[in-house]
Amino acid sequence: MKKSRLEAFSDGVIAILITIMVLEFKVPAGAGWRALAPLAPLFSAYLLSFLYLGIYWNNHHHLLHTVERVSGGILWANLHLLFWLSLFPFATAWMGGHRREPVPAAAYGVALLGAAIAYFILVQAILRTHGPGSLLKKAIGDDFKGKLSIVLYAAAIALAFLRPWLAHLVFAVVAAIWLVPDRRIERSLAG
Amino acid sequence: MKKSRLEAFSDGVIAILITIMVLEFKVPAGAGWRALAPLAPLFSAYLLSFLYLGIYWNNHHHLLHTVERVSGGILWANLHLLFWLSLFPFATAWMGGHRREPVPAAAYGVALLGAAIAYFILVQAILRTHGPGSLLKKAIGDDFKGKLSIVLYAAAIALAFLRPWLAHLVFAVVAAIWLVPDRRIERSLAG
Amino acid sequence: MKKSRLEAFSDGVIAILITIMVLEFKVPAGAGWRALAPLAPLFSAYLLSFLYLGIYWNNHHHLLHTVERVSGGILWANLHLLFWLSLFPFATAWMGGHRREPVPAAAYGVALLGAAIAYFILVQAILRTHGPGSLLKKAIGDDFKGKLSIVLYAAAIALAFLRPWLAHLVFAVVAAIWLVPDRRIERSLAG
Amino acid sequence: MKKSRLEAFSDGVIAILITIMVLEFKVPAGAGWRALAPLAPLFSAYLLSFLYLGIYWNNHHHLLHTVERVSGGILWANLHLLFWLSLFPFATAWMGGHRREPVPAAAYGVALLGAAIAYFILVQAILRTHGPGSLLKKAIGDDFKGKLSIVLYAAAIALAFLRPWLAHLVFAVVAAIWLVPDRRIERSLAG
Repeated sequence: MKKSRLEAFSDGVIAILITIMVLEFKVPAGAGWRALAPLAPLFSAYLLSFLYLGIYWNNHHHLLHTVERVSGGILWANLHLLFWLSLFPFATAWMGGHRREPVPAAAYGVALLGAAIAYFILVQAILRTHGPGSLLKKAIGDDFKGKLSIVLYAAAIALAFLRPWLAHLVFAVVAAIWLVPDRRIERSLAG
Repeated sequence: MKKSRLEAFSDGVIAILITIMVLEFKVPAGAGWRALAPLAPLFSAYLLSFLYLGIYWNNHHHLLHTVERVSGGILWANLHLLFWLSLFPFATAWMGGHRREPVPAAAYGVALLGAAIAYFILVQAILRTHGPGSLLKKAIGDDFKGKLSIVLYAAAIALAFLRPWLAHLVFAVVAAIWLVPDRRIERSLAG
Repeated sequence: MKKSRLEAFSDGVIAILITIMVLEFKVPAGAGWRALAPLAPLFSAYLLSFLYLGIYWNNHHHLLHTVERVSGGILWANLHLLFWLSLFPFATAWMGGHRREPVPAAAYGVALLGAAIAYFILVQAILRTHGPGSLLKKAIGDDFKGKLSIVLYAAAIALAFLRPWLAHLVFAVVAAIWLVPDRRIERSLAG
Repeated sequence: MKKSRLEAFSDGVIAILITIMVLEFKVPAGAGWRALAPLAPLFSAYLLSFLYLGIYWNNHHHLLHTVERVSGGILWANLHLLFWLSLFPFATAWMGGHRREPVPAAAYGVALLGAAIAYFILVQAILRTHGPGSLLKKAIGDDFKGKLSIVLYAAAIALAFLRPWLAHLVFAVVAAIWLVPDRRIERSLAG
C-alpha cells in the first residue's frame, strides 16, 4: 500500500462528504425571502461542518505527511476515521433542522467525538509504526488540542440536554481553537 | 502541504459540484414533450452554472500553477472559495425553478459574488506569499476581469429586483467575458 | 494546464456520473420480489449507461494518452463532452422508467448523440494541435466507429417514434460495437 | 492505459460509493431518540457495507500493486467489479429497511456474490496477463478466502429464505474473515 493512494482515497471521501452536505438544502417551493428563512439554522450548521471537514482534511494531510510506511493497522484506523466523518452530513442536517432540541445536538456531538477519538487512534497507530523519536512524535507533542477537543465534545453532549445552544457554542469554540494558527492558541491554552 | 494535494482536493470538490447539479433534474412522472417543458429554465440555469464551474476550474488551475509554497492562509482562502462554489447547485436549482422571481436571481448573484470575492482573496493570499516580482503578479496584471466581474455581479443583484431577466442577462454576459480568449476581450474592454 | 489534471478531472466527473446513477434506484417500500419487478427496466437502462460511461472513460484515456499539449480549445472541448455525459443519469432514469414511450427513448438518443459529437469535436481539437503526422492521427485512422455511431444514434432517435424498442436495440448494438475488441469489428463492419 | 489511472478511477468510484450510502439516512422529521430508533437496522447494514467496501478497496490495492500491464480484459474485468459494487448502496438500504424479510437479505447476498465472482474474474484476468510464475500468483496462492467467500455468500442467499438473520450472520462472519489479519485466519480455516 503506497501512502499516495491512502491520501487520494481519504481526499476523495472528504471532498465528497463536504459536497454532498449541500444536497440537504432542499430547494424551497416559494421564491421569496421567507422561503429562505427556514434554511438559516441548517445553513449555519452546514458552515460549521464545512469548517470541521476542512480542519480534518488539513490535519489529516499534515499527519500523513510524516508517515513512511502504511501498515494494515494505519489503513483501518484511517477507514475508521472516515466512517465517523461520513456521519457528518446526517448529523448536520438533523441538528440544522432542529436547533432547539437536545438529541440532535447530542448526536452531532457524538459524531464529532467519534471522529476525534478515531483521529487519536490513527495518530497512535502511526506513532506505533514509526517509534518515539520520529518526526510525527515531535510534531504532535503531547497533542494538547486533540485531548482538549475530546473533553469538550463529551461536555457538549452533556450540555445539549441542559441547553442545546450551549452545545452549539462549544462546537463553534472547538472549531475556532483549530482554526486559529497553532502556536498562539497552544500558548494561551497551555498557559 | 504539497500543492498537488490542494489541487487534487479542489478538483475533486469542483468535479462533484459540477456533477451533483444534475440531481436537481427530477425525473418527470410523464413521458411526453410536455413533461420536459417545465425543466427548460432549470436546464438553462444548469448550463450556465456548468460554464461557471468550468471557468473556475480552469482559472484555478492556472492560478495554482504559479504557486510554489502552500501556506495556511492559501489553504483556508482556497476552502473559502470552495465553500461559495458549493452553494452553486442550490442557487442554480432555485433560480432555475423560479425564473421570473427576483429573490432567487439575487441569491444566485450572491453565490457568484461570494465566489468572485473569495477568488480575489485567494489571489491576494498567493501574491502575499510570493512577492510583487512573482510569475503570478505578471500573469494576473491588474486583474481587470476579476474586478469587473465583482462590479457586474453586484449590479445584477440590484437589477434582479427591477427585472429578473436583466440579472440573468448579466450572469450570461460575465460568463461570456471569461469564455472568450483573454487578449481580445481585455483589449476590447480595457481599450 | 498539465495533461494529468485534465485526466484527473475527467476521471472524477465520469466516476461520479457512473456512481450517482444508482441514486435513481429508489428503495422500494415493499420487501418481496414484486417490489423489485418495476425496477427491471430501470436496471437494464442503468446497465447500458454503465457500459457507455465505461466505454467513454476507456476511449477518453487512449485519446488523451496521445495529447502532448492541452490548449484552451482542448480544455473546453473536453468540458463540452463532460456536459453531455452529465445528462446520462437523467436520460437513463427517464428512459428506464418509461420503456414503451418514444420521447424518453429519443431523449436518451439525444444525450448519446450529443456526447458522440462532442467526442468528435474533441478529437478534432486535439488533431488540430498536433498535426496530421501525429500519433493520434495514426491511432484514430478514419474514425469509422465514431462516425458510424453518430449515424446510428440519429437513426435511433427517429426510430424511437416508430417503435421505442427499436431505438433501445440500436443503443445496445452500438455499445456492443465499442465493446468488442477493435480489429475484428472494424474488419467485419468496414469489410 | 496506465495502471495509475485504473487505480485512480477505481478509488474514485469506491470513495463515492462508500459515501453516498449515507444519503439513504433520511433525516427524521422528529427530534427525539424515538425518531432515531427506526434507523438502527439501516445503520448496522451501513456499517457492514462500509466494512465490505473498505475490504474491497484494500484488496484491490494489493491486487493492482502486482499488475505490470493493463490489458483491455483487465480494464473490463475491473469495470465489471465496480458495477457489482455500485449495487451495494441500493442493497444496503433495502436490507437495512427490512431486516426480517428474506428477499432483501437475499438481494444483498446476490450483490456480495456478484462482486466476489467479479473479483475472482479480475484476478484470473491479471494472472493470464502475467503468467504462472508472477508475483501475484505467489501472493494469491490458492485464494482460499476468495473461494470460501463465494461458497458462503451462496449459502447465505439460500439461508435468507429460511431465517433472514442467519444470512445476516454469514455476511458479518465473512467480513470478519477478511478483516482479521491474513496468516492466522488462513491457518485456522485451512488447518
